[in-house]
Amino acid sequence: MKEDGIGSGQIIRRKEDGSLEYQRDDLTVEEPLEIRIARQTIATTMRTPGHDEELAAGFLVSEGIVRTRDKIDKFSRPATARNRENIITVHLAENVKPKLGSAKRFGTISSSCGICGKESIAAIRQSFPAIVSAKDVRIDIGTLLSLPPLLRELQGEFARTGGIHAAGIFDLRGEPKIVREDIGRHNAVDKVIGRAFLDDQLPLDRHVLLVSGRASFEIMQKALSGGIPIVASVSAPSTLAMEFARESNQTLVGFLRPPSFNVYSHIERVNLSETS
Amino acid sequence: MKEDGIGSGQIIRRKEDGSLEYQRDDLTVEEPLEIRIARQTIATTMRTPGHDEELAAGFLVSEGIVRTRDKIDKFSRPATARNRENIITVHLAENVKPKLGSAKRFGTISSSCGICGKESIAAIRQSFPAIVSAKDVRIDIGTLLSLPPLLRELQGEFARTGGIHAAGIFDLRGEPKIVREDIGRHNAVDKVIGRAFLDDQLPLDRHVLLVSGRASFEIMQKALSGGIPIVASVSAPSTLAMEFARESNQTLVGFLRPPSFNVYSHIERVNLSETS
Repeated sequence: MKEDGIGSGQIIRRKEDGSLEYQRDDLTVEEPLEIRIARQTIATTMRTPGHDEELAAGFLVSEGIVRTRDKIDKFSRPATARNRENIITVHLAENVKPKLGSAKRFGTISSSCGICGKESIAAIRQSFPAIVSAKDVRIDIGTLLSLPPLLRELQGEFARTGGIHAAGIFDLRGEPKIVREDIGRHNAVDKVIGRAFLDDQLPLDRHVLLVSGRASFEIMQKALSGGIPIVASVSAPSTLAMEFARESNQTLVGFLRPPSFNVYSHIERVNLSETS
Repeated sequence: MKEDGIGSGQIIRRKEDGSLEYQRDDLTVEEPLEIRIARQTIATTMRTPGHDEELAAGFLVSEGIVRTRDKIDKFSRPATARNRENIITVHLAENVKPKLGSAKRFGTISSSCGICGKESIAAIRQSFPAIVSAKDVRIDIGTLLSLPPLLRELQGEFARTGGIHAAGIFDLRGEPKIVREDIGRHNAVDKVIGRAFLDDQLPLDRHVLLVSGRASFEIMQKALSGGIPIVASVSAPSTLAMEFARESNQTLVGFLRPPSFNVYSHIERVNLSETS
């Protein structure tokens, strides 16, 4: 296919010296995923295909629709739909009746909310209690600083284009456990939490979540749904993320750009002594 | 309020030399905005407060709910709700009956979709026809390259923290017309289009939209709803954004990082000769 002299998959690049050249494009794939429970559509999210079962599971966990592994029986694709690769159906275990009301409340644009601001924090805190963690759930500064380059390395070369977000679960010694990528920040987090859920590893109460983008309210809420006590972001948190973290007993680290970082809440989990 | 030795509004920063200091935080405010038409909640989005009327108007335009300025009578806040600053009601003109079904389809997470991928492009193309623009709707390379530093300058110092997204409308000579910021990429675009809509300036058919983040499918769709022929992003577009731009006759520029950039579609609107 040709169009304007640009073939599908080809772009024109202006290089630093001002010259022009044709290149292959190398873009992050974005396609919708419709998540269904039985025949009901729960959500549609623009995502990077791959790990769809994890994404669906993580979404249901972060919405409070399922809490334990045994609640999900299996996943399937519709047999005949034209875009069957963009639809995933979650089959809940027998006798599980999901509370679907809450699923509509979150998301960048969702169709009903009704509760706002501080009140929504309170409502979410009702579904997900604040973190209770052991005193030895702490991370050394050196370990914390090692995470961003490690995440980038695990993402591979493509990540350097900046077109894809990553989320990584690490243990307190900095060992990577799960790393996933997606064009959407939230989806990358849903995927790592979904993977842990499917492996029956929740709560991730001795782990750190590192996200390549900003830390918004929803990222903190998703981390809380997975029981994660420490969340680090290479970029800025929002005010609501900080407030949520403080009230949920989550340690929130922002602007984690070695050698510096900020701690916005619950610094007691960061071992400030370099030599400890 | 004190908590863990961190006062509300205070953070601990590890500086480059490894020393620690207390700082004031300087974070982007994130609060929900519930958009209502009459008494019905249409959407709730996490946004940075300010320019809420523009955000609501731009959202309704991009969803195809309103198309001309005369369709909106006024905006109001609920008189008594506890979080009244986080709720905005749009009062449509008499006899305007909005098609609300479509409003639920878009967004990172929306509660119903049903149509996916190529089909959703086709559906959106039905609501918003492809751009038809005059032959002289072109932008010089020099002008294009001048936009990112200009946008950053108009954003001010706070933007450098990276915690907020910006969208700017420029004319073909590179003159800035509207610049708005928001914690959400989509909201910043809704605000600039909403401002133009409220000033009865749509379609923006001799203008460029520059976004500080990635160019996703939804950004292209919002630009199309405003009739904008040229969209530039300082970061990566997605595959679906590129496909949408090609089919909608939109020029899509990505990785606009002077002195280089990529053109993904309809390069005929970029004056490749430096001296023209």
